[in-house]
Amino acid sequence: MKLSDIQAIDGNDPLAGKKPLFELPEQTIYLDGNSLGPLTKAAKARAKAVVEQQWGEDLITSWNKHQWIDLPQRIGTKIGALIGAAEGQVICADSISINLFKLIATALSLNPKRSIVLAQKDSFPTDLYVAQGLTELLGQHRCELKLVSDEQLTDAIDEDVALVMLNHVNYKSGEIYPMEELTALAHEQGALTLWDIAHSAGAMKVELDRCKVDLAVGCSYKYLNGGPGAPAFVYVARRHQNKVEQPLSGWMGHASPFAFSGEYQGAEGVNRYLSGTPGILSMATLDAALSAFDGVNMLGVRQKSLGLSSVFLILMDKLGLEQEFELLSPQEHELRGSQLAFAHPDAYAICQALIARGVIGDFRAPDVLRFGFTPLYLSFEEIWHAVHILADIINTKAYTAEAFQTPQKVT
Amino acid sequence: MKLSDIQAIDGNDPLAGKKPLFELPEQTIYLDGNSLGPLTKAAKARAKAVVEQQWGEDLITSWNKHQWIDLPQRIGTKIGALIGAAEGQVICADSISINLFKLIATALSLNPKRSIVLAQKDSFPTDLYVAQGLTELLGQHRCELKLVSDEQLTDAIDEDVALVMLNHVNYKSGEIYPMEELTALAHEQGALTLWDIAHSAGAMKVELDRCKVDLAVGCSYKYLNGGPGAPAFVYVARRHQNKVEQPLSGWMGHASPFAFSGEYQGAEGVNRYLSGTPGILSMATLDAALSAFDGVNMLGVRQKSLGLSSVFLILMDKLGLEQEFELLSPQEHELRGSQLAFAHPDAYAICQALIARGVIGDFRAPDVLRFGFTPLYLSFEEIWHAVHILADIINTKAYTAEAFQTPQKVT
Repeated sequence: MKLSDIQAIDGNDPLAGKKPLFELPEQTIYLDGNSLGPLTKAAKARAKAVVEQQWGEDLITSWNKHQWIDLPQRIGTKIGALIGAAEGQVICADSISINLFKLIATALSLNPKRSIVLAQKDSFPTDLYVAQGLTELLGQHRCELKLVSDEQLTDAIDEDVALVMLNHVNYKSGEIYPMEELTALAHEQGALTLWDIAHSAGAMKVELDRCKVDLAVGCSYKYLNGGPGAPAFVYVARRHQNKVEQPLSGWMGHASPFAFSGEYQGAEGVNRYLSGTPGILSMATLDAALSAFDGVNMLGVRQKSLGLSSVFLILMDKLGLEQEFELLSPQEHELRGSQLAFAHPDAYAICQALIARGVIGDFRAPDVLRFGFTPLYLSFEEIWHAVHILADIINTKAYTAEAFQTPQKVT
Repeated sequence: MKLSDIQAIDGNDPLAGKKPLFELPEQTIYLDGNSLGPLTKAAKARAKAVVEQQWGEDLITSWNKHQWIDLPQRIGTKIGALIGAAEGQVICADSISINLFKLIATALSLNPKRSIVLAQKDSFPTDLYVAQGLTELLGQHRCELKLVSDEQLTDAIDEDVALVMLNHVNYKSGEIYPMEELTALAHEQGALTLWDIAHSAGAMKVELDRCKVDLAVGCSYKYLNGGPGAPAFVYVARRHQNKVEQPLSGWMGHASPFAFSGEYQGAEGVNRYLSGTPGILSMATLDAALSAFDGVNMLGVRQKSLGLSSVFLILMDKLGLEQEFELLSPQEHELRGSQLAFAHPDAYAICQALIARGVIGDFRAPDVLRFGFTPLYLSFEEIWHAVHILADIINTKAYTAEAFQTPQKVT
């Protein structure tokens, strides 16, 4: 596989035209969009407008004049279109952690005779922490977190389970879990499902409605490029709406927030999953960032993502790197998300050496290197260079330099 | 009281030098800083830097390089200094609604034999809604919200009460409630206190430590000028820290978030009141905005605030407006917060007519006009002009014009 072959692939890439929408730094190959998506020109312009014109000039009147008040719904609709959710089921609010609390409680209210929340042992930790917090608050008789390995998962979905809470794509390995099958299995046993789609939203075709998912949460600062700590989103299938209230019942989720009534009455539909006042700088910036997805077919995104990671693996093989690293991610396309993870005893130092050469991946303790493949702004040629730089770092043992050894606080 | 007298007061105002720090629009007298504080030059510069340089150029490395990860604590320390809280007791996170949930649950855990949460009937509604949400979740035997009028308040604080949850300054009338006395009364009865200082933080001297307050929440987008929907803050007195976990146990409140352990273990001190990933654009902007308070004596702020509202009332009297409006705010200085509220049957139209003339106040349904007095950027001369414009609108009945009649969605 020669560079000219790679360049030919880029020449035929229908998503190549999206790259100029992004403000990527020079001399950088950014393989960490699975952790923090980069700045877009649209987000940059909107952030400036919302601060300098809207807040600065129009002040309080912006809530109506610039429709700040509707941002959670407008963003929800835009994200919904990317994750297979018909309108009125997604809203932008708070963080994943906060939203998980709302939704686990919702599931337990919808399925009141059961108490078990079944989850994967290697879920992203906050998912487990939030369930533990709710258990601590309610007592085990009302909320009991049961953790299982992947092998035990299907057997563990039984008629005692109230909620199956799953990561669509594992944050470390990038393994995909079959949304449709597992949701059907849960439903057969009378359980609801809550999918954390942090590592799939914006990276692949997600079909919440078609898979009959009940509840979902996701992140906007990874593949959706909303900005650092941008607010998360909530999906509540229409059939479950208006049946129960969620417990974090703040004023923005009230049916009439500006009536200032003393009695909480949840708004219709997914709107009641709002709690406090939305963070407008972050939301407006996210709203603009989503325009990078205008006209994008998510199947095309998926196809290119697999192409990028496949080329990465092929080149690693060709450059003799396969033996150096243990691949933690699935080889099979149907199981592989939009990232690759490798174990290596010197993963931390290698990650630092790569960063010093302009290749940004990330490190997960104790020994994992992760690379994210983000089709809107990565070219195949960048993958080619990234693997060649990695090969050079390994072959010259450049990563053993003292500068790369000291672990700092990681993110 | 002539304009020249007013100008003389401005000439001697020790806070006059703060006005140039703000980016106020031309031809505007902004009396709504109690709802949304204006943009500062520092916030504008930081918002640009955090988007364009930090996110745009340094991407994921900014979590360490630009210390994004420490923003909640750094901001907490800065706000703490303005509200009489020694270091290590305040952290910036989420919204007031979300933080109330954490703190009401904390109080019930700290005072486990009692279940009553006593609150003022006319608290800001979200405070009541959140307590109602927790009641719904836990059942009345564990959390029972009891609402009382101001007259009933002191008698109602008895030995059945777990938590007295109070607004330091009423959001509508601006009435101040005596923090030290009510906290002492609660403690005598074995109850804890949770103060919502949304309408006092940044507007007057608040002394959480000296008043022996147990828990508090507050807002950063009003008198602290953090920007629309900027994150809120939590205060937990040191003596109550590390005793209980709060229920919204997300990964950022974990003792070692980046160890990705499967078991929640709350961080030491107030850090465990974090939940999900912080919204960095909003937090960094708030962090910069707080620099407007550098070197400010909060007693001086309080003194000027009372001066501004007093001049407003004196001029209303002098211009014959007193009969037109019903003052809902206290006349007594020790009870008057940093705002004045007036009832008038045409409050909505008058508010719109004022806005059309560049005087921004706000309207609260059904018939209330509110004006906020923010000492860092308002001059006495502006108050003089505002009242004269109000008098003109009333005397000419300008507010009866059709353009001002149609209520829109209010904020």
